[in-house]
Amino acid sequence: MSWMLKEIHEQPDAMSRFYDKESGAIKAIAQKAKGLNISHIMIVARGSSDNAARYGKYIFESHLGIPTILAAPSIVTVYGKQLKLGKGVVIGISQSGQAPDIVRVIKSARQSGAYTVGITNTKGSPLAKAADDAIMLRVGKEKGLAATKTYTAQLMSLMLFAAFFSGDSKLLAAIRDLPAAMMQTLAAREQVEEIVERYRYMEQCVLIGRGFNYSTVQEAALKFMETCYIVAHPFSTADFMHGPIAIAGTGFPVFICIPQGKTTKQLNEVCSGLNKKQLETIVVSPLKSSLSLGTQSIRIPVRTSEILSPIVNIIPFQFFACFLSRVKGLDPDNPRFLKKVTRTL
Amino acid sequence: MSWMLKEIHEQPDAMSRFYDKESGAIKAIAQKAKGLNISHIMIVARGSSDNAARYGKYIFESHLGIPTILAAPSIVTVYGKQLKLGKGVVIGISQSGQAPDIVRVIKSARQSGAYTVGITNTKGSPLAKAADDAIMLRVGKEKGLAATKTYTAQLMSLMLFAAFFSGDSKLLAAIRDLPAAMMQTLAAREQVEEIVERYRYMEQCVLIGRGFNYSTVQEAALKFMETCYIVAHPFSTADFMHGPIAIAGTGFPVFICIPQGKTTKQLNEVCSGLNKKQLETIVVSPLKSSLSLGTQSIRIPVRTSEILSPIVNIIPFQFFACFLSRVKGLDPDNPRFLKKVTRTL
Repeated sequence: MSWMLKEIHEQPDAMSRFYDKESGAIKAIAQKAKGLNISHIMIVARGSSDNAARYGKYIFESHLGIPTILAAPSIVTVYGKQLKLGKGVVIGISQSGQAPDIVRVIKSARQSGAYTVGITNTKGSPLAKAADDAIMLRVGKEKGLAATKTYTAQLMSLMLFAAFFSGDSKLLAAIRDLPAAMMQTLAAREQVEEIVERYRYMEQCVLIGRGFNYSTVQEAALKFMETCYIVAHPFSTADFMHGPIAIAGTGFPVFICIPQGKTTKQLNEVCSGLNKKQLETIVVSPLKSSLSLGTQSIRIPVRTSEILSPIVNIIPFQFFACFLSRVKGLDPDNPRFLKKVTRTL
Repeated sequence: MSWMLKEIHEQPDAMSRFYDKESGAIKAIAQKAKGLNISHIMIVARGSSDNAARYGKYIFESHLGIPTILAAPSIVTVYGKQLKLGKGVVIGISQSGQAPDIVRVIKSARQSGAYTVGITNTKGSPLAKAADDAIMLRVGKEKGLAATKTYTAQLMSLMLFAAFFSGDSKLLAAIRDLPAAMMQTLAAREQVEEIVERYRYMEQCVLIGRGFNYSTVQEAALKFMETCYIVAHPFSTADFMHGPIAIAGTGFPVFICIPQGKTTKQLNEVCSGLNKKQLETIVVSPLKSSLSLGTQSIRIPVRTSEILSPIVNIIPFQFFACFLSRVKGLDPDNPRFLKKVTRTL
């Protein structure tokens, strides 16, 4: 069994542990941030952590109404400019805590007067030291090259921060139920194993998500690229319609993540439209009405509220990447050219 | 001759006209914005306009130090949340001025107390009406489906806004020289025509840029997708290293935009690294030392300062998309599935 597969399965337990041991610290951090009367939040990250950051942007904006910036690290690391961040919270995310660009942006933000928070899986790491406060993911060492349990724990961290910030007790209760929902979702593995051979020779694909789950397809695309060498292009629905849809001829594979919620209707319509153009649609959804639209479909065995659904919805995609890698004769733990810790500036 | 090709050639004159007729209005808008003591800027756009928005983010942050948010329109249009934007300037960009999502975000931002500015090529359009003030691109009707002259004029608008905001007279003088630099760059057409046949059967590629020119490769990728149906994936250098590089086996085509400036050294190193992995690198640069690194290369005939270079550097990519479309037996003015005005929510 690959580390990746093992760690996909570890996620429900890891999330339980994380919730039990770290939510107190996150609550304190969120209340400190709330006391500052901030006018914006900035999140800085790379790779899978940056996909988690995108989820953070969507939940901070939709749940808290606070404008949220996804940082361009080069402003600090290449152009040497310190941003005016005194009225903000700046959150750095890195599982290893060693990403030099992320650490430099956090240091620069702290100097400019921002309240800085590091989210990392590594105690005593440069990121944990550089930030005012740190959230520890506590999911155990991630041995797989492809991030899985650190990604979902990063989503949980950001969601808990938002829920403690707003003090929404209903949302907090729903977050507590997430590990159980993740456990149920592991059952999607079987369906994935059944259909994955069909994609043995898939060399390119598009993945479509909307709103909260735009982050899901960004992260899914990264898994597909890393472990299967597929040129996988993630789009928000609207961005795809603004030009890139031209790439999709007959049979072109498009993965669509359709949660229950405010985006369901539009995504169903998009899927139907793609079917009419004779594309191959692969629907990932908990909804029968959506699943029936796909050329192929993967059923998520549990319904969660849309805002929390990315924490569950990534799981079938993680399985897909992991099994397709094997079917293609590759090793998901050893993609070419990659190391676990990437150092960029 | 396609409209696209015609309009690529129109750009230098269009920029001159735009500068002469509109810079007064932009100066007034920038000074109004400066008087507000803002804590952030938000830009909202889709498609090519969104690539211009990314350039805006990089120049506002590096030149003005003001944190800049690229908007997620769905926060307003899908989730119905009004962001707390009272301390900011919000800029909407749409060549047609008719994008309903952009207009709704601008209206919501204005209600929240932000100073709102529309950038559009269409007088009296919904965007021009919805915003407090409007910048008119004045480049004449864009008849090609693929945005060219409206894109470069959008970049010019954002750059002029930043330069008037800072009052940097040296930068303003350099902007005035841009139409001449664009005119010289049209000479890159011949080189593009010489090498484009080689890519007749290219179905996928990666495009790498850094800092200011990340927007250039985002826009180039969109042109490749729209007019050539190539699955073209743009990355910032650092993001590419964080996983996606695994997709690039022997001969995989990677376009690299290497300007003169703070990113040159790193991009040269990245290019050398990719050569060692036996990828096909296509270097677009004004620098001999960079051009010599590429498997193929396209020389930009003029050197501009790095911050302004995206306004010039996109031109060879526009030519490439336009001619490759023809070589592939397609019509750059009539991509499948697309209309000039895309209406999304």
